[in-house]
Amino acid sequence: MAGNTIGQLFKVTTFGESHGPAIGGIIDGCPPGMALTAEDLQLDLDRRKPGTSRYTTARREEDAVKILSGVFENTTTGASIGLVIDNTDQRSQDYSNIKEQFRPGHADYTYWHKFGIRDYRGGGRSSARETAVRVAAGAIAKKYLREQCGIEIRGYLAQLGPVKVETLNWDEVHNNPFFCPDPAKLAALDDYMRQLKKDGDSVGARVNVVASNVPVGWGEPVFDRLDADIAHAMMSINAVKAVEIGDGFAVVEQRGSTHRDELTPQGFTANHSGGVLGGISSGQDILVSMALKPTSSISIAGKSINIQGEVIDVVTKGRHDPCVGIRAVPIAEAMLAIVLMDHFLRHRAQNMHVQVNTPDIARFKRD
Amino acid sequence: MAGNTIGQLFKVTTFGESHGPAIGGIIDGCPPGMALTAEDLQLDLDRRKPGTSRYTTARREEDAVKILSGVFENTTTGASIGLVIDNTDQRSQDYSNIKEQFRPGHADYTYWHKFGIRDYRGGGRSSARETAVRVAAGAIAKKYLREQCGIEIRGYLAQLGPVKVETLNWDEVHNNPFFCPDPAKLAALDDYMRQLKKDGDSVGARVNVVASNVPVGWGEPVFDRLDADIAHAMMSINAVKAVEIGDGFAVVEQRGSTHRDELTPQGFTANHSGGVLGGISSGQDILVSMALKPTSSISIAGKSINIQGEVIDVVTKGRHDPCVGIRAVPIAEAMLAIVLMDHFLRHRAQNMHVQVNTPDIARFKRD
Amino acid sequence: MAGNTIGQLFKVTTFGESHGPAIGGIIDGCPPGMALTAEDLQLDLDRRKPGTSRYTTARREEDAVKILSGVFENTTTGASIGLVIDNTDQRSQDYSNIKEQFRPGHADYTYWHKFGIRDYRGGGRSSARETAVRVAAGAIAKKYLREQCGIEIRGYLAQLGPVKVETLNWDEVHNNPFFCPDPAKLAALDDYMRQLKKDGDSVGARVNVVASNVPVGWGEPVFDRLDADIAHAMMSINAVKAVEIGDGFAVVEQRGSTHRDELTPQGFTANHSGGVLGGISSGQDILVSMALKPTSSISIAGKSINIQGEVIDVVTKGRHDPCVGIRAVPIAEAMLAIVLMDHFLRHRAQNMHVQVNTPDIARFKRD
Amino acid sequence: MAGNTIGQLFKVTTFGESHGPAIGGIIDGCPPGMALTAEDLQLDLDRRKPGTSRYTTARREEDAVKILSGVFENTTTGASIGLVIDNTDQRSQDYSNIKEQFRPGHADYTYWHKFGIRDYRGGGRSSARETAVRVAAGAIAKKYLREQCGIEIRGYLAQLGPVKVETLNWDEVHNNPFFCPDPAKLAALDDYMRQLKKDGDSVGARVNVVASNVPVGWGEPVFDRLDADIAHAMMSINAVKAVEIGDGFAVVEQRGSTHRDELTPQGFTANHSGGVLGGISSGQDILVSMALKPTSSISIAGKSINIQGEVIDVVTKGRHDPCVGIRAVPIAEAMLAIVLMDHFLRHRAQNMHVQVNTPDIARFKRD
Repeated sequence: MAGNTIGQLFKVTTFGESHGPAIGGIIDGCPPGMALTAEDLQLDLDRRKPGTSRYTTARREEDAVKILSGVFENTTTGASIGLVIDNTDQRSQDYSNIKEQFRPGHADYTYWHKFGIRDYRGGGRSSARETAVRVAAGAIAKKYLREQCGIEIRGYLAQLGPVKVETLNWDEVHNNPFFCPDPAKLAALDDYMRQLKKDGDSVGARVNVVASNVPVGWGEPVFDRLDADIAHAMMSINAVKAVEIGDGFAVVEQRGSTHRDELTPQGFTANHSGGVLGGISSGQDILVSMALKPTSSISIAGKSINIQGEVIDVVTKGRHDPCVGIRAVPIAEAMLAIVLMDHFLRHRAQNMHVQVNTPDIARFKRD
Repeated sequence: MAGNTIGQLFKVTTFGESHGPAIGGIIDGCPPGMALTAEDLQLDLDRRKPGTSRYTTARREEDAVKILSGVFENTTTGASIGLVIDNTDQRSQDYSNIKEQFRPGHADYTYWHKFGIRDYRGGGRSSARETAVRVAAGAIAKKYLREQCGIEIRGYLAQLGPVKVETLNWDEVHNNPFFCPDPAKLAALDDYMRQLKKDGDSVGARVNVVASNVPVGWGEPVFDRLDADIAHAMMSINAVKAVEIGDGFAVVEQRGSTHRDELTPQGFTANHSGGVLGGISSGQDILVSMALKPTSSISIAGKSINIQGEVIDVVTKGRHDPCVGIRAVPIAEAMLAIVLMDHFLRHRAQNMHVQVNTPDIARFKRD
Repeated sequence: MAGNTIGQLFKVTTFGESHGPAIGGIIDGCPPGMALTAEDLQLDLDRRKPGTSRYTTARREEDAVKILSGVFENTTTGASIGLVIDNTDQRSQDYSNIKEQFRPGHADYTYWHKFGIRDYRGGGRSSARETAVRVAAGAIAKKYLREQCGIEIRGYLAQLGPVKVETLNWDEVHNNPFFCPDPAKLAALDDYMRQLKKDGDSVGARVNVVASNVPVGWGEPVFDRLDADIAHAMMSINAVKAVEIGDGFAVVEQRGSTHRDELTPQGFTANHSGGVLGGISSGQDILVSMALKPTSSISIAGKSINIQGEVIDVVTKGRHDPCVGIRAVPIAEAMLAIVLMDHFLRHRAQNMHVQVNTPDIARFKRD
Repeated sequence: MAGNTIGQLFKVTTFGESHGPAIGGIIDGCPPGMALTAEDLQLDLDRRKPGTSRYTTARREEDAVKILSGVFENTTTGASIGLVIDNTDQRSQDYSNIKEQFRPGHADYTYWHKFGIRDYRGGGRSSARETAVRVAAGAIAKKYLREQCGIEIRGYLAQLGPVKVETLNWDEVHNNPFFCPDPAKLAALDDYMRQLKKDGDSVGARVNVVASNVPVGWGEPVFDRLDADIAHAMMSINAVKAVEIGDGFAVVEQRGSTHRDELTPQGFTANHSGGVLGGISSGQDILVSMALKPTSSISIAGKSINIQGEVIDVVTKGRHDPCVGIRAVPIAEAMLAIVLMDHFLRHRAQNMHVQVNTPDIARFKRD
């Protein structure tokens, strides 16, 4: 289908099905000379890994990534980086019953009609298992951006069903299995998830990602705007149904006199724009928010049809996350890193010699 | 900056600044054999044209498009289609005062830092004037999709500031200058806009676009998903800050048992997904919603700095829309058409021989 | 057909038919800050222009190029550059007789079968008229490479039919209408061309292009090698049937001990490789040679069929070059410039920080 | 370096170094529904495999390819196909002596200057080992083209040093280790190679590839011409220095009255064009010829410098082919298959509905 690549100069191409022998990918365009080992990728993979808490799927994957090329003596060489992650816990037998079923809310129906054949085991190519490769690729981008540009990319769970986060304390994000930055909400989250599991149901979530210290100037109008490429990348994550930059949908009711971020010699006075003006980074924090739908893999029976067009009841057994949004946090970080890395290289190609005497104004500090 | 192309098989590349001699573009990949004249493009261009009502900018552009190639005896030949629209009403003198100013909320600051040079006249390349070429290109895609696939692509204004549309009557959309489908809201819109002009301010808007009769199967996972490419295209429109597919952000509070659209032999029972499952069209209506920020070109003074870093007051004179969201309706339609056309060709390249015996279920009718 | 773009970071997209209202193109990716006017492009366009001597087609085109965007106050802004050249001397009446004929050696038969429709006037899109836009785009690349990198790109006629050039005197190339660097061959060329016109026939040619002062390091293995992209660009020129880099086909009979260019602290001792090793420029002159077939537009009758499949005789009237290879010299220079410009930007994106202490060895001087 | 992908709809991306743990690639865009197993790829891999005769390198690689994705129940699914071939015979110790040397005629010097780091073991990424992945990818394309379009792609050794093939007997090609179609030349080839090994030297070769039964209409002018893309693909093969289509360089001395292939209701009367007119396939055999330089890995000492710029003598030990051109035959076939497959899909995307009543003339039979 030739749609498995993202990026133009930092290109990530992935392969692999949920229940095939392995998933993997190729990262083409990583600059030479960066220190890199599999451990650098493993840290983020472990954050995404299923089975890390009772709130995510019980499927246990080692998700041990191997670097097959592009790194020599623990340093990137500029050659394409081949990655492979073996699928170690496949349990294909769980899925034989859905071979001819179109599970409502899943890609079964659309894959079947598009391709005429479907690897029905665990969703095949449409499974979120593929996102592990994105996380590994994103870890390379994150490392480069952090070391070369001082950029920090961090995500958190902003809302889970009715439970809204009210405080952003970055130090708390990694102290709980929800990536929740508001310790006052942990009890509510825990209660809600217990009830959800009891109900055999699932729920949606909002995930926010922030990139700090991005220099002014990244993004290529008019189509390859930074925000447009971010929207593309986020919407390419399984289950994402909406993306906002900065104030997002709140701008509908805003007036121009409120929305426009004024400039002072000390920096912008606000960040309604979310760090992008005219499709180009402004030097402020890049603010991205997204909505993830509730997974359709639930144990409550649903109506559907099979490939013969007959009416059926569908009950998804197997091991599934009641809220896929939680584990989306490291995935969203990875996608933002991949987009920023691509635009860093694209900007640098054509504008390295640009000399602007205007001092870059102090960057907006998000409190 | 090499970011002025969208699409892979139906490729649209644009050029042109607000106050240069002309804007234009190249459409590469239009199939041969379609009847096409400049008049086909002019219809949509006239819908976007400034100066059509007292609610939009008083700038008067003929926006007369010329087809320079790719069409022979009123039929597309398969060669690249060159388009040009002369800029006839430029009035450069209006803009000399902002030569060294960074207008808050505009791309002045980011273009300056990226390129070190800026065509400050009317926003230069960052002006929404460029979207006229998108509308012309989209008209080609719309015509092809309508004639070959029966697809209809229609947009409307869903909200303007606090005024929310409550009824979707397609027949009304073109009976008023707001693209408003709810005649009961016209008076409120009129009142609001009058006050806005009096205040010298601007306001945001929500625009919805719907594509009907899209066959099941379009979209190329995992990165070039139909919804991801739609998000990219919409976010590439000037002033767009958020995009939703189907239920969008409402999914955050939904449960899986509610969200998943059940299938019956008669079709889906709902369209929470917005016509896309797993990144591939489901045969249901494609539902897209977006937020457009209020333009920053207002006559209320704002604080900013100039290229020397000195504090200044900015007042935007000239002729500007108090709500750029209104005229975005034909632009959003055009972008959706371009994305669908691209995916039609991409799908067809690889899957023409797919034979699925399952009858395509009746499509969801949006009421 | 979506094949009208070349380049990844310096992207050139063209449109236009031989007898439409205009030809033109978009150059996307030119860095900002370069001084540029239409006159800079006109110089090379005039070198390619038909009607400049009795040896080329009598068709007279002004070939006056207009820059429609991307340049502000005679300086590139980083925005896409729109170009247009009006077709002023079309004489469509010359071509009505060939409307249903497939001229042997032309693209008539293949365009007809591919597209089912054909702009038969003067070859339509398959006409070499399109190459004028390449020359204009190439002039931008040449100027940038010359000013920023000191690169010089020069071509010459190396052979015309049986007449082989034996001396390379760059100063002579522009003193004669053949782009011939060997003044001793001018009389023979003149005699041969006179006889050819008398015979109503045409002949092939060999054209060489050399790029000097290209730094070591340009080219992106394994597929986007510099030599592979050069081969692509040259073979995309009308009538080109073969391309060599360095010693080209002579390597078939060479031994490794002869072919390998040895290195010394003073530079390479020879340039059999043609300036490319492993797909990456070596710092030596880039040496490219190509063969152009004799035009099939001759007044000697040829056998063919028409679109009904009937046997016909074809005689090409109108004004044609007896040797299209001559005018190919500036086109080949332009294509080499476009490829080098693209690879300059690509290399710079990913390797700007590379620090190699080894001093770049002195470059091979071609005598 | 982001140059490791070829193709637009049938995209092949490769990774891997000569002495890393594995090489591999991703084939994105293979249509669903084709029967495929690893054995289908292994056949061509075995033809390319080192160690198959005394004329090629003694290095022994199993070259056992594993399909990791995109194939379900021995059928392609439309998902990206991940391939891996483990490097089983690496012997890194052979290469430590060249760590700081620039071997003349190799990519050592250019990789070092481009990347500032070099996997010196066996050439690293610049090794022809990478071409094994191309052969595997090409086998997929060949199978599809053969089964769906009846296309046959076959190559042979046309010349090795001074020994020229005079007879084209396809049945003989696979009866000897030289891919030689002329049994009368086998003794001369054998003698020549023995002497070459004794001399410790290497020699160049000419390889021809022919695609039969390609339909009329493939290729996308003006830049993505079929012949231009073939030239790119062939020149991207290690050691290739020249490419011809059809008569190639012989056209320089041809006249138009000779070169143009006349058409009759029974087909073309000749194939000087090599099956491509105006960049589009004509229905005749696609005729491609290429020159491969003698490998620079020879045991005769050569002068060079090291990374400190000091004068050194280089002697390449290890196991190397005295004529790399021999094993290039299956690689060239693979590259031609990849290009044709890509253009098949591209053509089909935009021109499936083209109805041409003119009967496709009988195809030229090459005798």
